[in-house]
Amino acid sequence: MTEVNRQILLASRPQGAASVDNFRLVETPLKLLADGEVRVRNHYLSLDPYMRGRMNDSKSYAQPQPLDEVMIGGTVGEVVESNNAKFAAGDKVVGMFGWQEFGTSDGKGIQKVDTTHVPLSAYLGPVGMPGVTAWYGLNRIIAPKAGETVVVSAASGAVGTVVGQLAKLAGCRAIGIAGGEEKCRYVVETLGFDACVDYKAGNLYKDLKAVTPDGVDGYFENVGGEVLDVTLARMNAFGRIALCGMIAGYDGAPLPLKHPALMLTQRLLVQGFIVSEHMDVWPEALKQLGTLVATKKLQYRESIAQGIENAPEAFLGVLKGKNFGKQLVKLI
Amino acid sequence: MTEVNRQILLASRPQGAASVDNFRLVETPLKLLADGEVRVRNHYLSLDPYMRGRMNDSKSYAQPQPLDEVMIGGTVGEVVESNNAKFAAGDKVVGMFGWQEFGTSDGKGIQKVDTTHVPLSAYLGPVGMPGVTAWYGLNRIIAPKAGETVVVSAASGAVGTVVGQLAKLAGCRAIGIAGGEEKCRYVVETLGFDACVDYKAGNLYKDLKAVTPDGVDGYFENVGGEVLDVTLARMNAFGRIALCGMIAGYDGAPLPLKHPALMLTQRLLVQGFIVSEHMDVWPEALKQLGTLVATKKLQYRESIAQGIENAPEAFLGVLKGKNFGKQLVKLI
Repeated sequence: MTEVNRQILLASRPQGAASVDNFRLVETPLKLLADGEVRVRNHYLSLDPYMRGRMNDSKSYAQPQPLDEVMIGGTVGEVVESNNAKFAAGDKVVGMFGWQEFGTSDGKGIQKVDTTHVPLSAYLGPVGMPGVTAWYGLNRIIAPKAGETVVVSAASGAVGTVVGQLAKLAGCRAIGIAGGEEKCRYVVETLGFDACVDYKAGNLYKDLKAVTPDGVDGYFENVGGEVLDVTLARMNAFGRIALCGMIAGYDGAPLPLKHPALMLTQRLLVQGFIVSEHMDVWPEALKQLGTLVATKKLQYRESIAQGIENAPEAFLGVLKGKNFGKQLVKLI
Repeated sequence: MTEVNRQILLASRPQGAASVDNFRLVETPLKLLADGEVRVRNHYLSLDPYMRGRMNDSKSYAQPQPLDEVMIGGTVGEVVESNNAKFAAGDKVVGMFGWQEFGTSDGKGIQKVDTTHVPLSAYLGPVGMPGVTAWYGLNRIIAPKAGETVVVSAASGAVGTVVGQLAKLAGCRAIGIAGGEEKCRYVVETLGFDACVDYKAGNLYKDLKAVTPDGVDGYFENVGGEVLDVTLARMNAFGRIALCGMIAGYDGAPLPLKHPALMLTQRLLVQGFIVSEHMDVWPEALKQLGTLVATKKLQYRESIAQGIENAPEAFLGVLKGKNFGKQLVKLI
């Protein structure tokens, strides 16, 4: 029996906003497994804002996603067949197989994970790339001291949830910015942030000021645009900004920064980063994050779309902030 | 005989651009010197862009200059009378006496300087605050490696001249940005920069690109506005920007940054700083800079206005880039 692998390819590059037309579903028969190879049935696909950048054919921090190839992306799944001594059927693995139901590897680029205390999908969230992203930006760039105020935008997202909770564990005042009352309530009531500002309420500066009476010492930026302008205006002297994402500008319209001189007058440190360039911190970060998840000290939430065919629409939702927590696609 | 001290006070705060009307010259009789006090005849007053920020009554990195008080500023001069055992008539000192002909101190805030090998005025330039500013931003923020490309704006100014020459001494490619052919020629021919781009020629991006074929690794920013936009677009991955001044926006119109997302996509470090907050580096920096000036390895140039009454106009010239090298006012 030849199994079929359903895959999503990048069909065309967006002109302005990305749309479902930029993607194409194909069905590809699985090839026989060669010697040394491992076949993985992907259980979850991770959808992340960075993917939008890869869809453009422009200078960015990574190679563009090639047209007519499987969209890149992180996956977790189970080994279903192995011609490699290092892996056995039943092993749970994390990898970068992209938007498809099956992945084939020569054993490189996949790591076995232990799902005894940590659910498989968490390796795409708090114990995966988003978690390490949060950990790096907070600990290595913002490096907050107890008592300082840390703000994070996209606070209910995969990265933001971890940033704020780690900041609380470090003794900081943690303030979220999120879109909508429901997300804000979750951030405060479930995650334990001190406050969360709803940017959709239309009073962003006033509302942020009200919950940051001592100003802002650290800002973890996932959004850009107005949210960055406003938070910049609340920064204290010697504040640190970890620039992780600027999703507000991913659809092509360049968003200016209104008052860059604040970086000078407040003597700010601004550092852009991409976590895959700091592999040295991953073991330490993943160990801490795994322990926190296993002991329920780190909460997280997932938005789960069902089936590879729904990945494009779910991804467009991420770009518009429709997801609530880590966006995954369940593939089985 | 009662001597008269001519002083320039801040008479009013600028509405928009600063003008000579914002200043007032007064003549104040010198008081008798009290016990422990030192009287200094100022020889040179330093005029610096940061003074423009002090003229506003707004949140900045320093207290606003109070109205109807002597404008702040660095000075060098000679002790003419001393009731303090630590100073004797004839001592040359550097201090912060501001825009006036005489200064009186209880001995604090003035330091004796050695003019055997370094001219007195140089302690307001390459061996003073501007020199240490250049030293700090280059060595502690940009931290360039030999072979890297370092760009500095306001390249013929008091800070810029030192940045580029120190970058050359560190084995870097040094590129200046300055206004006008004459300044650019000086920067290349006298100071030894590899190239200098004339921003007044109207082709800033194209001209900068032509002289930075390998991109830009370090940028020392004194100007802001278009110059920052353009240089940002030439930054290499992991570039560092020392944000020292944004003189283009000092007259009140906030200048946006067009493409802040470049800080993320190129994983840049941007650090605003003010050198007076890093007093720990001054001894090391001044020692190096003094040696370089004494041995003629560091060139510098001065624009000298004559007489305290001409300080306001000379200062306005600095804000418009009319000075060529360090702007001083000779007071004697």
